[in-house]
Amino acid sequence: MSISPELAAAMKATNAVFVNEVVPTRDVAPLDRVYTADARILPPGSPVIQGRDAIKAFWTAGIAALDCKSATLETVHAEASGDVIAEIGKAVLTLGSGANVEVKYVVVWKQEDGTWKWHYDMWSPVA
Amino acid sequence: MSISPELAAAMKATNAVFVNEVVPTRDVAPLDRVYTADARILPPGSPVIQGRDAIKAFWTAGIAALDCKSATLETVHAEASGDVIAEIGKAVLTLGSGANVEVKYVVVWKQEDGTWKWHYDMWSPVA
Repeated sequence: MSISPELAAAMKATNAVFVNEVVPTRDVAPLDRVYTADARILPPGSPVIQGRDAIKAFWTAGIAALDCKSATLETVHAEASGDVIAEIGKAVLTLGSGANVEVKYVVVWKQEDGTWKWHYDMWSPVA
Repeated sequence: MSISPELAAAMKATNAVFVNEVVPTRDVAPLDRVYTADARILPPGSPVIQGRDAIKAFWTAGIAALDCKSATLETVHAEASGDVIAEIGKAVLTLGSGANVEVKYVVVWKQEDGTWKWHYDMWSPVA
């Protein structure tokens, strides 16, 4: 990774909101602190979904449909440039069945109100 | 889009190499002018593939397996910051059967030897 420890820590703090406050509780309100207001997500088999309200609706349905119990997010590679961080990461989702699903992702990060947030978020299974 | 006309033109020129010199000919040598040397691609159902040689091998097999005859690439949204451009785009692939497949993508661009190239490239079907 070619990012500073400070940026890496900021990214971990935002990821922790998703992992600890959203996935296990299925409460999408904390996504205000994860996604920029005009963020875009690009889920597999879906058109681009834009804006935090639409993204919240997606995750409300998506976490339930997957029966996702917990998730881990890990940066594999990241580069910071100006106001943007580009990141490739690895996610592991643990489902209600106990199965683990590994997913890769690209997140483009931007700062909003002093917090680094997900601005573009795209993921797909590794197999 | 929040990028300059100059950057948009540079992106179109690189995309044109892929669309005009690679897809119809199935010659992957011009990908030297499309991907950075240490680029990473994130195809659906695959782990991350890193480095131009591995990426060339992927596209040699992939264009043939899809029987892809032509492609269009269109920027939907892009943001430039320092040495990086983050882009969301739309691709339409025309297959040998005549069917069109629509794909969305995120490309993170970097300059290499004065040319803007694809550094992270992730895509997936829209349906």
